[in-house]
Amino acid sequence: MHEFDLIRRFFSRPGGREDTILGVGDDCALLDPAGNEVLAATIDTLVAGVHFLPDTDPGKLGYKALAVSLSDLAAMGAEPAWGFLALTLPEADPVWLESFSRGLYDLATRHRMDLAGGDTTRGPLTITLQAIGRVPKACSMLRSGARSGDDIYVSGLLGQAGLGLKMLTGEVAWRDRAAIDRLLSPEPRVALGMTLRGVAHACIDISDGLAADLGHILESCGLGATIRWEALPLAPAVRHYIEQTGDWRLPLYGGDDYELCFTAPPSQRRVLEQSLPSCDVSWHRIGTIEERQGLRLVKGGEVISLPQAGYRHF
Amino acid sequence: MHEFDLIRRFFSRPGGREDTILGVGDDCALLDPAGNEVLAATIDTLVAGVHFLPDTDPGKLGYKALAVSLSDLAAMGAEPAWGFLALTLPEADPVWLESFSRGLYDLATRHRMDLAGGDTTRGPLTITLQAIGRVPKACSMLRSGARSGDDIYVSGLLGQAGLGLKMLTGEVAWRDRAAIDRLLSPEPRVALGMTLRGVAHACIDISDGLAADLGHILESCGLGATIRWEALPLAPAVRHYIEQTGDWRLPLYGGDDYELCFTAPPSQRRVLEQSLPSCDVSWHRIGTIEERQGLRLVKGGEVISLPQAGYRHF
Repeated sequence: MHEFDLIRRFFSRPGGREDTILGVGDDCALLDPAGNEVLAATIDTLVAGVHFLPDTDPGKLGYKALAVSLSDLAAMGAEPAWGFLALTLPEADPVWLESFSRGLYDLATRHRMDLAGGDTTRGPLTITLQAIGRVPKACSMLRSGARSGDDIYVSGLLGQAGLGLKMLTGEVAWRDRAAIDRLLSPEPRVALGMTLRGVAHACIDISDGLAADLGHILESCGLGATIRWEALPLAPAVRHYIEQTGDWRLPLYGGDDYELCFTAPPSQRRVLEQSLPSCDVSWHRIGTIEERQGLRLVKGGEVISLPQAGYRHF
Repeated sequence: MHEFDLIRRFFSRPGGREDTILGVGDDCALLDPAGNEVLAATIDTLVAGVHFLPDTDPGKLGYKALAVSLSDLAAMGAEPAWGFLALTLPEADPVWLESFSRGLYDLATRHRMDLAGGDTTRGPLTITLQAIGRVPKACSMLRSGARSGDDIYVSGLLGQAGLGLKMLTGEVAWRDRAAIDRLLSPEPRVALGMTLRGVAHACIDISDGLAADLGHILESCGLGATIRWEALPLAPAVRHYIEQTGDWRLPLYGGDDYELCFTAPPSQRRVLEQSLPSCDVSWHRIGTIEERQGLRLVKGGEVISLPQAGYRHF
């Protein structure tokens, strides 16, 4: 199959956005953002055998490649607008491509995002997604925005994707559908991110584990934090895993949950209680930003110092 | 080396653009384009062993990864603004990274482009560059813009990169520095593209060979063309190669030259003669857009029908 036939067949659905002047098919896409907004842009790569198991369902892969980028947009409070796909494939398998593009477009359509450009090349399976979203000026939530005394919140549940990975690799012998689903099909918290505009001080998506990603916020703003074990939202399967193994670090260091971690001053508690229920995701207050450096966990009355490290790529 | 240390060390030079609100280091970059412009955006991947020989100098690779994207921006008449790099590496070799990032930043700085975001992952060497440029509204040059009767032009020389590749792979036993340089370090015709705004009807960059890329213009606008062999700009080494081998197809089907092919009505000839000399690249009128479908070459009085096909990736 020729590259152009491949693009035409699998990656040339008409875009739906009025601010897309030109999509796939020329040297560049042409985009027309509004003058009173800024653009949030991010790029992420998934490599076979590193970020996903080589036999992963291609539909789930197409979904996840985009979900990871949408999650970054969500952490900036941005509304998704355009995606660019660089897809490197060992071979042009129509069945694989049909499923991959369906997974990708299903999620893109749900978030009114146009796939505005791409490049398909031959080589080891690698998926890079660049995503651009729109944010009203001065409404983005930077990592450096956290202030001492801020409450720390997380959305959804922690440690599910990490448990799902242990199940798929055979490290854990039993299965839990929700944990595996979270790993393969994380839900980017786009509506939550947009709702937090102007309310949250800082926001990050949890891709490397809570300790690492909250650690990025602390590093960026030069502050510390204490979080409470009893406040962490854990799925029944994760509680069961911890009871069985004693490995309570999983919800803190397991990656790939793609929930949001955000901080807001206590004065915003009522605003959050009123606005967040429309976002269709639970949220929990788990701790406090503090002047004192370092990340601390209070667990059963004991204070444990947590390393702020995540997954090492090299 | 940790991913974050790697980014900090090699890919965190401060940006110089006033419209970059936030560069590398948060979930997203934040960009602030002007309201009276549109954005041209493109993504391109280079894969080791497919797009470049695995032992290619990393500095030249960093340069070329960006040059390829800048060439796409040039073909839209866009001014380069922001780049996003997705770099997949088998290992984090500081010597390789130092050279790669220097090659990339040298070209980026020359074109006042900020590297605003990126992702480094472990895996088979693959380089994806997404680039965003700015164009005044209604000034972009689409492939579909060509009109019957338009003159066809190319910049620079044709077939040099194709000859350089034959030299590096050993298919041609002699060496020509300029041909190899063209392959490894193509010059994106950014200034030319910006000068052609409002003058040229259609424009494309020659990445797959003149016949294929002019073919894209013809396909997009539903027209045909005749080009004249004697008008094609050929370097002495390419002429020498053709005399030796009889392979006159090289300048038509050799890829990677990254010159611009553009069309403009004869009424614009004087405007072009006045404005193009400031662009520091030669240009040649090589043929005419015609109602009659197909791509024809007039060579020594004979009319040859040319297939409009380029490199097949799959």
